[in-house]
Amino acid sequence: MRLATLKSDKPDGTLVIVSTDNSHYVSAGSIAPNLLTAIEEWATLESQLRRLADGLNAGDLNEAKSFDSSHASAPLPRSWQWLDGSAFPQHGHLMQQAYSLPPLDAGQPLMYQGLSDRFYGPSDAVPFASETDGIDFEGEFGVIVDAVPMGISAKNAMNHIKLIVQINDWSLRNFGPTEMKTGFGFVQAKPPCSMAGVALTPDELGEAWQDGRVHLPLRVDWNNKRFGEAQGHEMEYGFHEIIAHAAKTRDLVAGTIIGSGTVSNKNYADVGSSCISERRAIDMIEFGEIRTPFMSFGDSVRMEARSQTDAPLFGAIDQQVKQN
Amino acid sequence: MRLATLKSDKPDGTLVIVSTDNSHYVSAGSIAPNLLTAIEEWATLESQLRRLADGLNAGDLNEAKSFDSSHASAPLPRSWQWLDGSAFPQHGHLMQQAYSLPPLDAGQPLMYQGLSDRFYGPSDAVPFASETDGIDFEGEFGVIVDAVPMGISAKNAMNHIKLIVQINDWSLRNFGPTEMKTGFGFVQAKPPCSMAGVALTPDELGEAWQDGRVHLPLRVDWNNKRFGEAQGHEMEYGFHEIIAHAAKTRDLVAGTIIGSGTVSNKNYADVGSSCISERRAIDMIEFGEIRTPFMSFGDSVRMEARSQTDAPLFGAIDQQVKQN
Repeated sequence: MRLATLKSDKPDGTLVIVSTDNSHYVSAGSIAPNLLTAIEEWATLESQLRRLADGLNAGDLNEAKSFDSSHASAPLPRSWQWLDGSAFPQHGHLMQQAYSLPPLDAGQPLMYQGLSDRFYGPSDAVPFASETDGIDFEGEFGVIVDAVPMGISAKNAMNHIKLIVQINDWSLRNFGPTEMKTGFGFVQAKPPCSMAGVALTPDELGEAWQDGRVHLPLRVDWNNKRFGEAQGHEMEYGFHEIIAHAAKTRDLVAGTIIGSGTVSNKNYADVGSSCISERRAIDMIEFGEIRTPFMSFGDSVRMEARSQTDAPLFGAIDQQVKQN
Repeated sequence: MRLATLKSDKPDGTLVIVSTDNSHYVSAGSIAPNLLTAIEEWATLESQLRRLADGLNAGDLNEAKSFDSSHASAPLPRSWQWLDGSAFPQHGHLMQQAYSLPPLDAGQPLMYQGLSDRFYGPSDAVPFASETDGIDFEGEFGVIVDAVPMGISAKNAMNHIKLIVQINDWSLRNFGPTEMKTGFGFVQAKPPCSMAGVALTPDELGEAWQDGRVHLPLRVDWNNKRFGEAQGHEMEYGFHEIIAHAAKTRDLVAGTIIGSGTVSNKNYADVGSSCISERRAIDMIEFGEIRTPFMSFGDSVRMEARSQTDAPLFGAIDQQVKQN
């Protein structure tokens, strides 16, 4: 099942069901006003939502309208909690090698809590204060969970993954080193993220959803030029393990979004990267100097993971950065 | 003006106005259903709320009922964002000295984003998974802001401080060092906080609110024994400066709660501490060994800042810890 949120005068937008080819939608407003409510009451509402989706996919619904994922808002325009991991070990290895950082073997998932009161939609222009702050994208996958009890096992956490999403975790790199050095984590370095327009239940991914990982490449284009197409499955920890880590000492509120961190692969020389920061680290390793600048106002970034048969899934994130 | 939230079947509770002696309340439901809504529309609603408060304080309202702050929920039982500082430099100095940490001179406020989907009320028993996790309290002051635009100056940030609150920032110390070492900040080390029952507009504090700081001692009792009464004004940065730091690269959503970090003073030998972790650091410095344990299930902690004339302000936080 595919879900999306259309912009409305309500801060949480309005919930719609999208057809399996992303071509049509119907309102789900008679079942739940918005996705946050649907996730809070998922056990009760899922079957009703799926019946509506079945009707839409069978072509039975006269009220179906044409869908364009670029017009959608983020599936969750806001949520109570966003916990972002950094689960691709190759990304960490490259950063350490390039900048001679001490090896970080925490033996557990890396995670910070980020801003969740606003997620930009897939086509929203994204405002930043200054080009000198090191404006960077990070292509990620994410999951949305219903209520998860404290102390859950990784195995049981898998059942709480209700939706899979595609995220651009906007980053301001010039604030990162100072904030990491404090040990307190990221605040200024992490402005709001963007989300692709369509959220998928895990079954929509078929065999591309295995071991709590998305087995698909995430294609990233910077100013219309291919920048990366790294595979989503090279995570050291699956999403279920990351959820269990997050829930060790807290209940996770329904609607919590958990991120994978920037998608990164061992064969980075062939597939490229999902963020500029990693490319700059590769510059350092290859050339002994940084050759890749960060983003400028007016630059665009496009991110899309498509199915193994090149069919649309989450829709594309395709955005420009602009002066605030 | 004093505001509180009574528990109801709604997750955000119901908003009430409290008299200036904390003895009576009236429902503010005709003006705003809950405090989060009131803060979102503060510019419009404040004058209506104040008229109601004036009537209550004049004894004109027949519908006034007896108020007990221990029965209230947190003023904000949940919010979109909780950003906690660590603005008392003495606390950092003691931790560095005790554990031979490198000096951390970030030249800017320390801050992490914490869990905001749940704040315990002042008398709620607080569940933890294990006594071996290093259960600790942290007595703090906090402020609640309305919408703050990105890039605001510290001077202008002062005007966005709408309410002052008193917080217990529960901490699990055994997770802290590993999480700080990653540079990603606290997740497992920071379960939900608690909040005292009454939120005050700054004018309620009179001269005790100066330079964006609360000039009052925070009395902390652990198992009914005085543990600390450190002064709230020894912050390196005032709340207005901490807000400007937080808003450097993001708009702050209305209802954002900003914390001071654990209250700590230079004359700690006289006034004590506001968290066990700091006392343990003092143990190390004084005795070369830690002599103070963390909390056990069944332990209680009470925190209260009262006025210069010993009148009630926020009400007391008075809680037991229990097995989850």
